[in-house]
Amino acid sequence: MKKYRYRNISLFILLSFFAFSFSAAKIDVKLPRPTSAQAAWQDAELGVVFHYDLHVFDNKKYSQRENRITPIEDYNIFNPVHLNTDQWIKAAKNMGAKFALLTVTHETGFALFPSDANPYNVKLLKWRDGKGDLVGDFIASCRKFGIKPGLYIGIRWNSLLGVHNFIVDGNGEFQAKRQAYYNRMIERMVTELCTRYGELFEIWFDGGASSPKKGAPDVLPIVQKYQPNCLFYHNSERADARWGGAETGTVAYPCWAAFPYPSTDQEWYSFDVKLLKTGDPDGRYCMPAMSDAPLRGYNGRHEWFWEPGDEAYIFPLPALVNMYYKSVGRNSTLILGITPNPDGLIPQPDVHRMKEFGVEIKRRFGKPIASISRKGEQIELVLKKATDVNHVSIMEKISLGERVREFTVEGFNGKKWVQLCSGSCIGHKFIGRFATVKVSKLRLKITKSSAEPVIKKFSVFMVDQN
Amino acid sequence: MKKYRYRNISLFILLSFFAFSFSAAKIDVKLPRPTSAQAAWQDAELGVVFHYDLHVFDNKKYSQRENRITPIEDYNIFNPVHLNTDQWIKAAKNMGAKFALLTVTHETGFALFPSDANPYNVKLLKWRDGKGDLVGDFIASCRKFGIKPGLYIGIRWNSLLGVHNFIVDGNGEFQAKRQAYYNRMIERMVTELCTRYGELFEIWFDGGASSPKKGAPDVLPIVQKYQPNCLFYHNSERADARWGGAETGTVAYPCWAAFPYPSTDQEWYSFDVKLLKTGDPDGRYCMPAMSDAPLRGYNGRHEWFWEPGDEAYIFPLPALVNMYYKSVGRNSTLILGITPNPDGLIPQPDVHRMKEFGVEIKRRFGKPIASISRKGEQIELVLKKATDVNHVSIMEKISLGERVREFTVEGFNGKKWVQLCSGSCIGHKFIGRFATVKVSKLRLKITKSSAEPVIKKFSVFMVDQN
Repeated sequence: MKKYRYRNISLFILLSFFAFSFSAAKIDVKLPRPTSAQAAWQDAELGVVFHYDLHVFDNKKYSQRENRITPIEDYNIFNPVHLNTDQWIKAAKNMGAKFALLTVTHETGFALFPSDANPYNVKLLKWRDGKGDLVGDFIASCRKFGIKPGLYIGIRWNSLLGVHNFIVDGNGEFQAKRQAYYNRMIERMVTELCTRYGELFEIWFDGGASSPKKGAPDVLPIVQKYQPNCLFYHNSERADARWGGAETGTVAYPCWAAFPYPSTDQEWYSFDVKLLKTGDPDGRYCMPAMSDAPLRGYNGRHEWFWEPGDEAYIFPLPALVNMYYKSVGRNSTLILGITPNPDGLIPQPDVHRMKEFGVEIKRRFGKPIASISRKGEQIELVLKKATDVNHVSIMEKISLGERVREFTVEGFNGKKWVQLCSGSCIGHKFIGRFATVKVSKLRLKITKSSAEPVIKKFSVFMVDQN
Repeated sequence: MKKYRYRNISLFILLSFFAFSFSAAKIDVKLPRPTSAQAAWQDAELGVVFHYDLHVFDNKKYSQRENRITPIEDYNIFNPVHLNTDQWIKAAKNMGAKFALLTVTHETGFALFPSDANPYNVKLLKWRDGKGDLVGDFIASCRKFGIKPGLYIGIRWNSLLGVHNFIVDGNGEFQAKRQAYYNRMIERMVTELCTRYGELFEIWFDGGASSPKKGAPDVLPIVQKYQPNCLFYHNSERADARWGGAETGTVAYPCWAAFPYPSTDQEWYSFDVKLLKTGDPDGRYCMPAMSDAPLRGYNGRHEWFWEPGDEAYIFPLPALVNMYYKSVGRNSTLILGITPNPDGLIPQPDVHRMKEFGVEIKRRFGKPIASISRKGEQIELVLKKATDVNHVSIMEKISLGERVREFTVEGFNGKKWVQLCSGSCIGHKFIGRFATVKVSKLRLKITKSSAEPVIKKFSVFMVDQN
C-alpha cells in the first residue's frame, strides 16, 4: 500500500519536472496516476456483474433486509439445471462489456465454488452431484470469449453464520472466538479465490471489506500478494475505485478520478456522497468512479437478483444509452447488473436488450468521422470535407493523470469558429453531444490544466439519433 | 406422549387386578411398565458409544469448554483414511455389546453423514471425495454383525453456528431468525436420520434435547413418528432412560427403573442427582438408568474422544469387571465410550481390552450351574449335588414392572439355610456376590413386593476370582 502510493508520487515528481519545461500555465498539484489495474479498468469502460445466490431459487420476492438476517432453509433449492456460463458471457460480450464479475458469495454466505475454507458451498448440493464449480465455469467462459474475469465477494453479511456488517452477532468470549474463526475463514477463502483461477481483473468486496482494525478480516495483503495486478475495490485502507454515489448507472459531471483520500471509508473524512460523485481534481489519490445499476432497474424496480415477473423492469434501450452518456461519457466505468435465472441462464429479454445496447453503442461511437492523438493546449482536427457532426469524444492519456481542468470544443462552420461544447473534466473519456452542425474542422482548446495535456484520442461523430 | 403413558397405566390396572387374586401382601402402587424399546434396552445390558468429531484430527488436547466456543479452522483435517467400521463393531461385539451408538454430531455441529439439512457435513470433505457416509457405514456394520444401531445427536452445542446450550448466540431479530433456522435445520436433520437408515435402537440427544417450550428444536414428534420403537433419550417432555448420575460406568444400589417424573429435566423437580442414581420404586414412569463411562477413563483421565497418548488410561480389566457388577449387576445398562482414532480405527490396546472384558464376563456368567424361572414369593433352585457357589443372578420379568421390593437369597449347606445375600431392587438384573459356600439348593425369598413377583431367571454361579 505505502509502496504503491510512493511509487506514484515519485513518478509524479519526475514527470512534472519535464512538464514544467513546456507548460507555463499549469496548476501546481501532485497529480495522481492510475496503476495499470486502474487504467485497464477505466479503459474497459463497460462491465457486468452477475448476481447469483440461493434465494434466486426460492421463488419469493427478495427483501434485502430479511435476506440478511434469515438463513435459507434448504440449500438444495440451488439447482441451475441448464447452467451455461458461455451464454452469460456471450450476452456480456454482445453488450460490449470488457469484463465481468460474479458474486462468489453474497449475503447468505453461500459460496458458488467448492471452497475448503467456507463450509457453506456448492459441494453440498445435489446439483452436479456436488462437483459443480460456478466460479470455475464462469471464469473459463470469460477466458474463452476474451472477457476479463473478476469476482464480487460478500463478506459483510452472512446470514448462516450470523455476521452483520462484518461483525459476528453474539456476546463475550463465544462471539470473539467465532469472529476470529470467521475472519480466518474469509482470509482463507479469499486466498483460494486469488490462487485457483488465474489472474483476476477486479475483486469487488460487497460494501467494502472494512478493516482488520475494525475487527473485519484482513483481505488486502492477500490480494496484494496473489493478485498484484487486480483492481482492489475496496477496504478502509485502499480503494482502487470508488462508488459514484448512486446505483443509477450514472455519475454527476464533472467526475474526477482523483480523490483526496486513499479510501472512501468514513474514518478518512466525514462521509459526503457529493465527494463520491464528483471526486476532487486536486486529490492525491487516483480512484476512478464506478457507475452501477441493475439492468432490471427501470420504472420503480431496482433488482440485482433475478425474480419472477421482472421482465417489464428491464431498462429500455434509450435509458441505457442515456446511462452510457452519463457514465462512460463522464469518465466513469459502467457496470450493469445481470440476473441469471433459476435455470442457470440469462433470460432472453435481458440477452436481447444487452445486445441492442451493444449494437447501439457501436453504431454511435464505433466509427468516428475523424480522430487525432496529440499533446498540447490546442489540438486541431481537420476533416476531409465539411461534414455534419453532433458528437465528440475526448480521451486523455490517463496513465499520466487527469491533466485537463477546463476545455472548449469548437467547430469551424466555414465562416468562423463556433463553440460545440465545453467542460472541465476529461479524464479517460468525455463525450460531448451537441446540435448537428456542418464543420470542416474542430479544435479542442484546453484553457486550464495541471500539466501539459496529452490527448490520447479526440474524435468526432455524426450520430443519427432518430 | 400422553398415549404412551396411558397405555402403561391401563395395562397396570388390568394386570394388578389379576395380581390381587394371589398376592395378599402387595404394595399398592401404580407400577410402571417399560415400553418394548425400554425392555429391549435393559435386556441389552451392554452397549458402546463411539465418539468421533473434527477435533479428533487436530492432534491437540481436547478442552470441552474451548471446543464448544471455538470453530475448527480446517474441516478437511477430518480424514480417516483407513476407516473400517466393521473393525469398530467387531470390537464391540467381542466385548459383548448388544448395541452401538455413534455421535452423528457433537459440539462442533459437524455431521458425519451427508445431510441435506445441516450444511456442515461430510459432503464437504476431500475424504472419499465427499461421498463418504460414516453413519451409513456404521449402521451397515452394525447390521452385518447383529449389533443394534443407535445414534447420538448433539444439538445443544454448535460452535460453527454459534449455538450454546440450545440457544443461538446473538441479539434481537437476527438471533430470532437464526434460532428459527437452527431449530428447523435440526428437525430436518433428525428426520433424515430417522428415515434414511432403517430402525434405530436408541437416539441419544447430547445433554437431552430440551424443549420447544424453551426455544429448542422440537424433535420428539419426529422420533415418535418415524422411529416409534426407538429408545428416546431424552427431552424435557420424555425420557425413556435416565442418566445414572455419574460418568463412572456405575450406579448406586438400589437403582430402580421407576421414576416420579416423565423427564429428568429441571422443570419437573428441583434437580437432585441422588434421585437420578436411585430412582424411586413408587415412581409412575419407567425410566431405567444408564451407567456410562469412557473406556479411557482410568487413573485421572476421562476421555470420550481419542487423543494422542491416552493408552495408559484405558481401564484395566478388573476395573471394568467391577464396573459391570455395579451397573449391569444393579439393574442398569452400561454404555462404554469407545474412541476411533484419526486413522478411522479403534486402537489396538482398546480392542484388546474390550475383548478381554467380553471374555471375562462370559467366563463369569456365561454358564450358570443352575437356573430357574418361576413366579411367587419363594423360589427354590435345587442343584444336582452339593456344589461350591459364590454368585447369583436374579432377573425379574420387567415387562410386568419391577415388583420386588425386598428379598433374601439363602443356600442350604447340608445342615441349615444360610443367608448368601439380600437386597431391595432386582429389576432387570441383580448380581449377588458372596463368599464361596457349598450348597445343595438355594432359595429366593421375596419379603416385600408390589405385585406377585415374576422371576424370569434365578441363576447360580461359581466364579473363579483369582
